[in-house]
Formats: sequence, C-alpha cells, structure tokens
Amino acid sequence: MAGGIGSRFWPHSRNAMPKQFLDILGIGKSLLQMTYGRALSLAPRENIYIITSREYADITATQLPHLPKANILKEPLRKNTAPCIAYFSHKIFHKDPQAITFIAPSDHLIIKEKEFYEIMDKSISYAAQHEALLTMGILPTRPDTGYGYIQVHDDITKSGVKKVKTFTEKPDIRLAKEFVRSGEFLWNSGMFVWSVHAIMHAFDTYQQEMHQLFYSLKNHYNTSHEEKHLNNIYVRCNNISIDYAIMEKAKNVFAIPANIGWSDLGTWGSLYEHRDKDYWGNTVNNNNMMMYEAENNIVVCENADKLVVVQGLNDYIVVDTEDVLMICNKEKEQQIKDILSDLKRQSKEKYL
Amino acid sequence: MAGGIGSRFWPHSRNAMPKQFLDILGIGKSLLQMTYGRALSLAPRENIYIITSREYADITATQLPHLPKANILKEPLRKNTAPCIAYFSHKIFHKDPQAITFIAPSDHLIIKEKEFYEIMDKSISYAAQHEALLTMGILPTRPDTGYGYIQVHDDITKSGVKKVKTFTEKPDIRLAKEFVRSGEFLWNSGMFVWSVHAIMHAFDTYQQEMHQLFYSLKNHYNTSHEEKHLNNIYVRCNNISIDYAIMEKAKNVFAIPANIGWSDLGTWGSLYEHRDKDYWGNTVNNNNMMMYEAENNIVVCENADKLVVVQGLNDYIVVDTEDVLMICNKEKEQQIKDILSDLKRQSKEKYL
Repeated sequence: MAGGIGSRFWPHSRNAMPKQFLDILGIGKSLLQMTYGRALSLAPRENIYIITSREYADITATQLPHLPKANILKEPLRKNTAPCIAYFSHKIFHKDPQAITFIAPSDHLIIKEKEFYEIMDKSISYAAQHEALLTMGILPTRPDTGYGYIQVHDDITKSGVKKVKTFTEKPDIRLAKEFVRSGEFLWNSGMFVWSVHAIMHAFDTYQQEMHQLFYSLKNHYNTSHEEKHLNNIYVRCNNISIDYAIMEKAKNVFAIPANIGWSDLGTWGSLYEHRDKDYWGNTVNNNNMMMYEAENNIVVCENADKLVVVQGLNDYIVVDTEDVLMICNKEKEQQIKDILSDLKRQSKEKYL
Repeated sequence: MAGGIGSRFWPHSRNAMPKQFLDILGIGKSLLQMTYGRALSLAPRENIYIITSREYADITATQLPHLPKANILKEPLRKNTAPCIAYFSHKIFHKDPQAITFIAPSDHLIIKEKEFYEIMDKSISYAAQHEALLTMGILPTRPDTGYGYIQVHDDITKSGVKKVKTFTEKPDIRLAKEFVRSGEFLWNSGMFVWSVHAIMHAFDTYQQEMHQLFYSLKNHYNTSHEEKHLNNIYVRCNNISIDYAIMEKAKNVFAIPANIGWSDLGTWGSLYEHRDKDYWGNTVNNNNMMMYEAENNIVVCENADKLVVVQGLNDYIVVDTEDVLMICNKEKEQQIKDILSDLKRQSKEKYL
C-alpha cells in the first residue's frame, strides 16, 4: 500500500512526493524501495503489487523499474485501507483463489530483516492451514502513545500465534504504560497475512455492501475493463480502515508477536531515532552543513549544493526545500498539523 | 564611500552584494540610495561622488541612475579610507580648489534628517571659514562597545564645534560606561567636513609619501588618463584608515556633537533595533512567513515566494538565500566572523 500522503514529514514530504517515495533515512533508497526489496525475498516480482493513487503511479514505476507495470494498481479515490484491500483481494482471487496474501504499508521501517522473514514464514504457513486473519503484532519496547495496541489472549498456540481480544485506539501515556507492563499488548503494525478466501469471507460477513460492489466486477478483473468499472464502484465505497471494517469485528483474528525492529516512522522524532547521528546528536542529510554549538537537531536540506550554517540551536527540526523553510522545535512537531491547516485556510495549498 | 564588503550581514550581504546595496531595513531603498538622497539635499548631483571598488561600479550605476556616470569613482584596490580620501580630495582640488567636501560612509543610518541637515549647515560654514578638520561626533545614548570614541575639550566654541583631544579604539564595557558618564566623549561616525585645501595640507604634513603619489597625477585628474595612472600609484599606497593616517595626528581636528539618530548598522543586533517589528518582536522581510510561539527573531528570506515557518524559536537570526541558510543565536552573532574564516579555510569561497 503506497497511497498515503504522509503530511507529518512536511515540508520534506509533499502532496506531490509523500514519505514512501523519499530517501528519508538518507541511505540511498526510498521506503517504498526498501519494502519492495523485502517483498522480493518472499515472492517473485510477478506476485508483488503496489496499490497507490493515480497521481503516484509514475513515481512508483520510476522507483521500481523491474516491477511489471500491470502490478501497479491505482485507487481511483482515497478511501482508506478497507476498499483498497477488498479490491486487491477480489482481483487476486480471480487469478488464484488459493492465494495467500501479505499486505503491508510501504512507508514503514523494519531493521531486523532476518527475524522478519522468520515471522513471515510462520505467518504464511499458518494462513495456509487456517481460515485466520493474521496481523503482525510488534512486541512493544516502550509505552508509545503514537501507536494503536492489540490485546491478545495469554495462551499461545503451538504455531506461535495468539488469539486477539481487542484492538485499541492510541492510548494516553498512563494507559500505554499499563499496556506494556501487562505483557498482553502488541503494537498494531498494519501488516496482515491471510488467504484471499479468508479475507473475502470476512468482507462478505462484516462489509456486505462493499463486498457486493467488488463482487459485481467479477467478470472484469484482470481485463482491460477493470479500471473503468473500478472507477464506478470505488466512489460508492465507504471510507473506512481495515481495522474498523473487519479486524475489530471478526472472530478469527490472530496476532503473531514480532520483534523485528519495526517503526512506522510516523513522526520526525521516530525518524530522528533511526537516522545516523554525529557525536553531538545532529543528523544531517549532506556534508554541506556547518554546526556550531548545536546538538540533537535534524536538518534536511534538499539542495545538496546549499550551505547550511546552524549556530546555538538544540533539539530542532530544520527542513529546507526549494519553496519552504521550516524551523520547528522537536518537542512541538505535533503543531505541524496545525500549520498545514493554517496553510489550507489561507489558500496556500501550493505549499502542501 | 561605498567600497566596503560588510561581511557582518553575511549571508544576506555577500562579497558580490555588500550591505550598502541592500534594502536591509526592508523599506524599499538600499542604504546607498538613502545616503544619496541625503546628499541630494546638500548639493546638486553633479557634485556628488561615489567612491567604490571596480566590481561594484555597475551596481552603483544601477541603483543611482540619475548620478552622472563620471561621478562613480573606482578604487583600483581596497586600501582603507586614507588613500580613498586622498584620491578624492586631489581630484576635487583640480576641479575647484575652494571646494568644501563632506565625506561619509554609504552604509549608515540617519533617522533624524532635520537635525542632520542643521549640523551639516553649521559644519559646512565652519569648514569654509577655518582651516579645520571637522568630524561628526555622535552624542552617545548608551555605553556601546562597538564604536570608537572621540574625546573632546569641555569648552565649546560659539560655532558649536569642540576641539578634539584624542581618538580612542573600541573600549571595553567598563571604559565605555566611564566615557559616557564623563560627558567628554562622542561616537566616531566616520563622517567628515573640510575644505579640500585643509585635508590636502594635512596629507602633505602627516602622510607625505601618499600625498606625493597623488600629487604626481596632477595633470591627469579629470582626464581620460586618470584611471590608468591611478592604477599605477594606488598599489603603492599604504593600507591605512583616515583616523590613523590623519585624524589622530593633526592639531586642527574638531568635532561637532550631533544628535541625529545615527547607527552604523554594524551588527545584526543594531539592524534588529532599527527594523519594524510585530507584536511578538519578530522582524521579517516579507509576508510569506508564519511564526508560531516565536519571539524577537529577525528573519530574512531573499525569495519572497518562499514560505518560511518558524515554531518555538526565540532570539535568532535566520537568513535564507539561494545558496546559504544560516540560523544563528542573536547573542552569538560575533561567531559569524569565525564561520566566515572556516569557510575560507575549507575553500568554500563561493559562499562568501
């Protein structure tokens, strides 16, 4: 899934170039390219699909030149993850009704790839043997209030998966501490493994209307008419996440606890944690920066030929693009949302 | 005099575009244009000369389109103020040996123009009647350690001028306080009024070698050969200021105390004092800036179409040019000198 607009990394991420397409870690690869690289270890490229919005299809093709063009699926509208997954599942079902699918965001970080592949092996064989909706639950390392949590039953199956009790919203810090202390909670990573049969059955049960819409296209999937018909039904789908639509309702939801060095890189703070830093804790994206009495800053300047001089600044996010300069206290990055609202209200959409 | 490179406003001022040519106050006029405007109230444009270096002759002509081109004098080399004033004085002497000249930097601010013209009237008539070297001494309003001071004798002449005892270097704060308390000290503004006869006599007395060099060109001033010959002698002049060369030595030096709202705008701090500020004490150079929890900053972005967003920043200088971004604590602006040295050492002259 590569359709998000990732406004939290504004102004580095922009509507025209969101987070998944950026080399946001400064390692020479975009997050999408890293995600595709992991997928390639699990399946041949013919079996890898990117679902994104129409406007990002070209960037996707440019960043993944070896991916078959037909495997770039275009959502006609932004409708959150449920319609996106329903569409994908119906389409794959008509190719191979026995297929097991792994569904993942394209803008997350996974550091422990070996552990990730082990978890994937387990998940895929579990999904092949059970009519189960499997979600990857990350073992929490701190009481993070930026993630949703999944509460699981104590008893572990012999396959290493745990039955899910509840999905929770992002908790406050008190609750998050309690969650982590209890040992019953995992972070909701938004990565899923299931058979197309299992997920279509769940849609048929819990989102019958949406299911019927996609079912009505059964003669058009993987034909030249698919796109035209998809446009007609997509507009009628509810805008709803897979968590609300299915996961919180279904009885056959399981989580597999994973310790894979995962982050959703949802904030500048989390990005800061994962970037290389110099002795003074600064992380910068090129060598043309001069830091004086400056510590723990994250500085991103998109023009590598531009000189950046920082004196006496600690704990700031500095982002310089061609048409936007932002200097923001690292502790106050949640205000970036308000800044974007102000820009909209002032009809300055060109900066979004 | 418009030959300075004004590196203290780097990176807004640059070697290619120093302070005097910038609209540094954000009022639609450069400091040079403001200085020229004051000069026009004192003399017809034929009698106004700009002495600058060769590389700035074109900018000067562009900014002062009504000034006769022949009145833009080009120093072959940077040699400080003494050779510059000697050249100018010899040249004018050959036009009009009776001339009274007013010599001023082009990058200073004068707010009280009415008082300035009153002082000029007095100064010019005093210089016309006396073989005197008259310097404008600013009545100090605070113990500033960034200025040189002029100590004067207590007794004032009926013309309002005071005999000068000594010129001082920039004092430390303790001494500066003592200077201001005593009432005997004025700020050295670098503005002078004298007859060309008086200043040439002084050069002949105290800088005989330099005087002879410029005297040797007597048949070439105001001819097509002037520039060629000037090149030959300028290289042989000492690099020395008018203060060291003449003012500290001559016996006929007088100061006229002036209360004219003067500043040499020598620091970002002094510029901040003189710019319009919003309710939160921020001074910005265009309307495309969004400030959140930000106070007492000076923000200069040369690209008026670029959006600048500042969150949680107080007391900083932020300057964004096409190829340099600088963020500097306002209290630490003296470090900009070190930054420029570092740039030279790292062979990054293109940013100077």
